[in-house]
Amino acid sequence: MTSASAAPVRGMVDLNADVGESFGRWTLGDDAALMPHLTSANVACGFHAGDPITLRRTCELAVGYGVVIGAQVGYRDLAGFGRRFIDVPADELTADVLYQLGALDGLARAVGGAIGYLKPHGALFHAVTTHEEQARAVVTAVVEHGGLPVLGLPGSLFLTLAEEAGLPVVPEGYADRGYRPDGSLVPRSEAGAVLTDPEEVAAQAVRLAEAGTVRSLCVHGDSPGAPRLAAAVRAALAEADVAVAPFA
Amino acid sequence: MTSASAAPVRGMVDLNADVGESFGRWTLGDDAALMPHLTSANVACGFHAGDPITLRRTCELAVGYGVVIGAQVGYRDLAGFGRRFIDVPADELTADVLYQLGALDGLARAVGGAIGYLKPHGALFHAVTTHEEQARAVVTAVVEHGGLPVLGLPGSLFLTLAEEAGLPVVPEGYADRGYRPDGSLVPRSEAGAVLTDPEEVAAQAVRLAEAGTVRSLCVHGDSPGAPRLAAAVRAALAEADVAVAPFA
Amino acid sequence: MTSASAAPVRGMVDLNADVGESFGRWTLGDDAALMPHLTSANVACGFHAGDPITLRRTCELAVGYGVVIGAQVGYRDLAGFGRRFIDVPADELTADVLYQLGALDGLARAVGGAIGYLKPHGALFHAVTTHEEQARAVVTAVVEHGGLPVLGLPGSLFLTLAEEAGLPVVPEGYADRGYRPDGSLVPRSEAGAVLTDPEEVAAQAVRLAEAGTVRSLCVHGDSPGAPRLAAAVRAALAEADVAVAPFA
Amino acid sequence: MTSASAAPVRGMVDLNADVGESFGRWTLGDDAALMPHLTSANVACGFHAGDPITLRRTCELAVGYGVVIGAQVGYRDLAGFGRRFIDVPADELTADVLYQLGALDGLARAVGGAIGYLKPHGALFHAVTTHEEQARAVVTAVVEHGGLPVLGLPGSLFLTLAEEAGLPVVPEGYADRGYRPDGSLVPRSEAGAVLTDPEEVAAQAVRLAEAGTVRSLCVHGDSPGAPRLAAAVRAALAEADVAVAPFA
Repeated sequence: MTSASAAPVRGMVDLNADVGESFGRWTLGDDAALMPHLTSANVACGFHAGDPITLRRTCELAVGYGVVIGAQVGYRDLAGFGRRFIDVPADELTADVLYQLGALDGLARAVGGAIGYLKPHGALFHAVTTHEEQARAVVTAVVEHGGLPVLGLPGSLFLTLAEEAGLPVVPEGYADRGYRPDGSLVPRSEAGAVLTDPEEVAAQAVRLAEAGTVRSLCVHGDSPGAPRLAAAVRAALAEADVAVAPFA
Repeated sequence: MTSASAAPVRGMVDLNADVGESFGRWTLGDDAALMPHLTSANVACGFHAGDPITLRRTCELAVGYGVVIGAQVGYRDLAGFGRRFIDVPADELTADVLYQLGALDGLARAVGGAIGYLKPHGALFHAVTTHEEQARAVVTAVVEHGGLPVLGLPGSLFLTLAEEAGLPVVPEGYADRGYRPDGSLVPRSEAGAVLTDPEEVAAQAVRLAEAGTVRSLCVHGDSPGAPRLAAAVRAALAEADVAVAPFA
Repeated sequence: MTSASAAPVRGMVDLNADVGESFGRWTLGDDAALMPHLTSANVACGFHAGDPITLRRTCELAVGYGVVIGAQVGYRDLAGFGRRFIDVPADELTADVLYQLGALDGLARAVGGAIGYLKPHGALFHAVTTHEEQARAVVTAVVEHGGLPVLGLPGSLFLTLAEEAGLPVVPEGYADRGYRPDGSLVPRSEAGAVLTDPEEVAAQAVRLAEAGTVRSLCVHGDSPGAPRLAAAVRAALAEADVAVAPFA
Repeated sequence: MTSASAAPVRGMVDLNADVGESFGRWTLGDDAALMPHLTSANVACGFHAGDPITLRRTCELAVGYGVVIGAQVGYRDLAGFGRRFIDVPADELTADVLYQLGALDGLARAVGGAIGYLKPHGALFHAVTTHEEQARAVVTAVVEHGGLPVLGLPGSLFLTLAEEAGLPVVPEGYADRGYRPDGSLVPRSEAGAVLTDPEEVAAQAVRLAEAGTVRSLCVHGDSPGAPRLAAAVRAALAEADVAVAPFA
């Protein structure tokens, strides 16, 4: 496994989305409709969402469609859906991530799969772009687990530290998030943060893929229209002769 | 892996106890003092007890002393410590067990170990002795995980079903629980259910080991005197020329 | 407060449904659309569903529409949505119920309301129809809290014990559940257990109300069509000159 | 209720400590031994510690000894014991606090008591000394609950905002924490942060009480020696003719 394997490749891109985020009686997203459009599935691991039987079924879906299973690890916070920063000490966070990686991998293997990468979720995703202690804690967990590729924000501290640790890093772009001219994301508190028009999302996906700076494209999975957006993105990429394939 | 591997062997016995049952700020048991006396450690998996960093440290302890790590899986019930029966449907229970097995294995591997067997905890331990749906659900999880040995009550439905499924089964005796003349355990609601005198416990351990009907001896780990009891058992077994060795 | 206050009254019926069962990011039911049709709202209390801000908003809705707030207490089991029997000892269950009653009442009072009755949820609802220890434990909690009316299955052990304890009891009928000729409910595992046709549900509601054996009618709140069903029931009751009013 | 009621009074001081912090099988602190020495008991509310039956028993103890029951509210974080900052939005935090206040009050009333004040726990205690959004959120909850006195760090933003909102505020001193010459606490990461010698703790308690700047003294309840420390403080205060009495 070399980090080169996950570098951007012109004319080829991976498509990822969050799945497995239901919990018990509560359903979130339409994983069955979304999965066929993906090449990588960010599956929750039970700390911010995803009870074990949901995770198992999600892994079965992914295996059935040949989609790579990623571990979407988060803070232990069901009530906050992992979207609230928690000041977890580094050694606890490393153990929390290892626990989640192992748990999801156990379920994935039971249905003929295995986890193929890690992507932090929600507030942890944001924290590790700049919070060195937590970023290092997550990287340490991935290294101790054996060295999975990690998905994240291009240029973020997380990807930098992961690369330094010898992990394959996968810079991703966001098909349905607004970008500023300088390449940064429009904050969620501002207008234009989230794109919902399928044509606009598809056009941005093609633009990101053709720019050759990202190896994966993310579409958000928890909106009712997610499967339609993902289908539009796939169609537009095909039209533009961009191959859609897992990064691994 | 054959089931014969874990059958009782005259003159040799394994010694197991529950560890890793602290949670966050709350400490239970003295794992560091108990571990050196064990050959098998039933490590909690986070559902009834055991936060990830506790589990990691417990696995490190076990690896350090060469003690085999077992997954002590339980119901998802921190408030009840896994001691209250929960009527979990079979497919959910199978997924819950796979999740716990994977999680603990992930932590164990990060510190150079791996899980070597499964033992149900608390109310799940009792349920699977007679509750066919739940017993089958646990056995299914172990088979799907790859086929670990399972510890349990001799003659219980759980061991019978596990054996039928081709799993190595390890019948265990209880050094510090009172037995009735017919070989059944004195219920916890009656006098004499729990033995606390080290000499009495040690004598019972020797008796059970020499009878050759169990392959492992259990001492309870959550009482303050547990390390002393375990030490007394080890000394008495040595005195009686019974070797203490992992069953695996 | 006398138990007579909640006895069936010919030509008048209460209409209750479960609300407040969302949790964090997960939405369940459409409380805003359902509430205007109700006279009594069974609000979750955080153990099987309902995070505090959801509960607060639900209480605000109820107060806004003049709907009586009931505490829908359940087992501590978010993953199982309170639908799995848990063998909770009586003294723990009493404390669990008191905790839930107080918590919901605190939120209700902050928005100008107060809890007006108790209804057990899910597996606890079913358990207390026959499980004496748990039924007594819930009744004890209600008595210790000060003596709220309790909703439940007509003829159930729960209502009998509640009445013996001097609590007002409210026998309820189920507008959208199938009944057998002997008056018992069709088990959920059989065909015809749940009615979904609004006309059929409305007709059954009128029949139950006119029979004069129940003081409240329950419509299930967690299906997408719940508000429409409730509206159909209200319309049919008006047509049949049955007044819809809270039992309290 | 006027804020003057809780102002420091020369020659008189209240003595508070954390109790009710056990959870299920896990015991923390020796509440039965500590309670007789206190005049105010900071009882956990279930979010960072304290299952309902533990809370009920703790309230019974408090009522039995005539100790005022305070609600020690915290973040929803059992795994972190409420000691990790969580970036909870204000409206969620207000609802979380109301839920906890109501829950504990419900249990307290069932045993003949009632909550008499609020004190934030752990990371929330520290956050509200400076984090305006969270401090206001807690104050809002107390106001909406009806206006309890609040305990806290003298000069903290929390007490300032509480006072502005018309709440009685109770500035407290820490008998067993090291103080710097400027009156601030020695951070826990530095030597001398925690005092364990009973004589030293008692002397500091007398000094703080005689200075007349605090109305309550806190001793930490979760160390094995807590009851002995509290007894030493009581003895020294009696010796110094400082009356020990609840602030309310």
